Amino acid sequence: MQDPLKIGIAGLGTVGVGVIKILEQTAERIAARAGRPIAITHVSARTRGKDRGVDIGGYTWCDDPGALADAPVDVIVELMGGSDGPALVLAQKSLSAGKHFVTANKALIAHHGQALAESAERSKAVLRFEAAVAGGIPVIKALCDGLAANEIVSVQGILNGTCNYILSVMDQEGADFGDVLADAQRLGYAEADPTFDIDGIDAAHKLAILAAISFGAQIDFDSVSVDGIRAVSPVDLDYARQLGYRLKLIGRAHMVDGMLEQRVAPTLVPVGHPLAAVEDSFNAIVFEGVPVGQTVFEGRGAGEGPTASAVVADIIDIARGGDAPAFGVPAAALKKLSATPTEARQGRFYVRLTVEDEVGVAASIASLMRDHGISMDSLLQRGEAGKGEVTFVLTPHRCALSVIEAAAEARAALEVVLSKPAILRIQDQDDV
Amino acid sequence: MQDPLKIGIAGLGTVGVGVIKILEQTAERIAARAGRPIAITHVSARTRGKDRGVDIGGYTWCDDPGALADAPVDVIVELMGGSDGPALVLAQKSLSAGKHFVTANKALIAHHGQALAESAERSKAVLRFEAAVAGGIPVIKALCDGLAANEIVSVQGILNGTCNYILSVMDQEGADFGDVLADAQRLGYAEADPTFDIDGIDAAHKLAILAAISFGAQIDFDSVSVDGIRAVSPVDLDYARQLGYRLKLIGRAHMVDGMLEQRVAPTLVPVGHPLAAVEDSFNAIVFEGVPVGQTVFEGRGAGEGPTASAVVADIIDIARGGDAPAFGVPAAALKKLSATPTEARQGRFYVRLTVEDEVGVAASIASLMRDHGISMDSLLQRGEAGKGEVTFVLTPHRCALSVIEAAAEARAALEVVLSKPAILRIQDQDDV
Repeated sequence: MQDPLKIGIAGLGTVGVGVIKILEQTAERIAARAGRPIAITHVSARTRGKDRGVDIGGYTWCDDPGALADAPVDVIVELMGGSDGPALVLAQKSLSAGKHFVTANKALIAHHGQALAESAERSKAVLRFEAAVAGGIPVIKALCDGLAANEIVSVQGILNGTCNYILSVMDQEGADFGDVLADAQRLGYAEADPTFDIDGIDAAHKLAILAAISFGAQIDFDSVSVDGIRAVSPVDLDYARQLGYRLKLIGRAHMVDGMLEQRVAPTLVPVGHPLAAVEDSFNAIVFEGVPVGQTVFEGRGAGEGPTASAVVADIIDIARGGDAPAFGVPAAALKKLSATPTEARQGRFYVRLTVEDEVGVAASIASLMRDHGISMDSLLQRGEAGKGEVTFVLTPHRCALSVIEAAAEARAALEVVLSKPAILRIQDQDDV
Repeated sequence: MQDPLKIGIAGLGTVGVGVIKILEQTAERIAARAGRPIAITHVSARTRGKDRGVDIGGYTWCDDPGALADAPVDVIVELMGGSDGPALVLAQKSLSAGKHFVTANKALIAHHGQALAESAERSKAVLRFEAAVAGGIPVIKALCDGLAANEIVSVQGILNGTCNYILSVMDQEGADFGDVLADAQRLGYAEADPTFDIDGIDAAHKLAILAAISFGAQIDFDSVSVDGIRAVSPVDLDYARQLGYRLKLIGRAHMVDGMLEQRVAPTLVPVGHPLAAVEDSFNAIVFEGVPVGQTVFEGRGAGEGPTASAVVADIIDIARGGDAPAFGVPAAALKKLSATPTEARQGRFYVRLTVEDEVGVAASIASLMRDHGISMDSLLQRGEAGKGEVTFVLTPHRCALSVIEAAAEARAALEVVLSKPAILRIQDQDDV
């Protein structure tokens, strides 16, 4: 058997500790699978003395994570997070120095993946980030290796466990977003600052990574259209059910006329759709490929064990000599795709608006729709006696988002409309 | 870019044609992903002249598939099928000659996988069989690579699309097994000789392969306990629903006290279980791993496109220089595990029996259960007025299969029992 593969870890939070546990406690199994022993030799974190439940006394300590790039290690594992700052510096230094680099950092890859992949290839280092997308579900390896024979037509998924947990609880209990979020924060299921999760940014990072690999394109985080779940009301979850759907935060990317369309949005998916039944903090990803058809991958998208599982899988890949390009093809072969212009983005929509309960209100809404050239799949009207207001849920035929937004704006200007219309996506099984 | 990787294909049925289509029609994309061009140079099949919809005129033809092992090719792709005969001869000759060998042949691997893996390692050839299990779902790569950091606790799945299709139609239409099978054969969803599929043998081949990789064990097809779906009646599907379950043909392997338990059996899985909602000819596999938790993989398990997708993924792996052992660890490191003895196999069961509708019949069944020391989770009794018979569905507490079988035998001997009791498995989410 060969010499051990020497590992330096930057960041000793839960995931870092999870990686140490796997590599130390199951060293023999890992060595059998990797074809050689794997030895942690250097670590770096913010505080040294902290009790982490694992003994780090045998590793060389570095106060400065950037120093790992100069240490005698083969692979640097970055688990600090953040799209810039120390994580980016470490990535750049490591790859320039020809050291392999494994990270769980979706923000880093979403913003700097192309440059880092180019740097890795220049110095014949390997860049891996399985843990950055969907935690324990080996979805990047599935795309790069298992589905490598396919033309990917679309990728979509539930990419943020916190949002899926919040929507699941709202759906089960009819509770308001704010209350469920507060509970989730108390229970540790949501961060103290939940912005990246609930505003869809975390899901957008992951989607941009998946899209780049799926379509052989340079990563383009900036063109992802992003809506989070703050505006979702329990009545939307309820109406979705009545219409035969479930409401989920879905990230979706596909090609339209040679342009890349990427969006993260609260979306109605029909019962029977593989994403409709994904509950709690689970993640799931659906690829449509030619010739493979539809494949679905589901599992835990976060947490110590699942994320560490993915990090160690990358380390094993490197130990075996795996040196395939980070995004499936050489960085220079990744195409620079245009994004579909916002006004060209089409789809199906769910529009909910609450209006004063007065004579002729349905007529004025109907004429407004007509005036915007919008025809309807379904219209649901419900008033509550004595409350003086009535709710309309409209699902127009497939049309451009811009048309819906224009109509919604005009509608909002109607005196009878009591609150901002809610606009959600509908994604049927056979929609492009 | 390097020289082309030269491929010889034995067997030009639908899958072989699918492989040719991918490699010829998307050659540029495949070369970008593989890091080098891939060129088919030799082919062999039963008849040469047949119109297959692809042009094979540019390839060197071999009447004898075994001749491919002597041809100047790097990889031999075996798509003939059969656990012995020409497929085995070709595998042995190819691997001994140091040629890489890719196959979709589950019977071959289930019976000879250990010997072939040893032979491959002796001559530093690569053996790959992603397409042998679950068609287009890259589940072997997921196990060997994506989940490589884990201790696998159990693997279970819907591994045969024909059986799942038949059970889905029986469930939807209340139709009898024989009628649905005949329809499926007419429509081409089932083979003229459906034995391997409906008797569970095909699923058992796949399960044995997954179990070997999951538990780092020598493949042991002979110890798989196998029941097919011939005896399933539409009433069982209906009772399963009433009890909150779906009835599926499930293959399952897990370790009990250091021994390997593998079974294929019609099984009740609760609604909400990831396998319960898998319909039609789809396949799905669920792994329980430490530390990753539960991961689920779903997709098309058969057919030209999905199977060819998996075959070409293996070819790309080889083109990139992937040389990890076929079963995840070197063949010599695969343990020889004992199988759990039949009488030690425990579980939960569904027992249905039809008896004469006469006074005291419930009492005699109840006493018989008591005499065998079996206690009940639930008992469902239903008679149809005027028909003179009544059906009991019993779900005992967790117990040994042997106890249930002894009781069923004693019950069958009761004069009032009108037909052979049906015994099915129950597999709850949290059952070991």
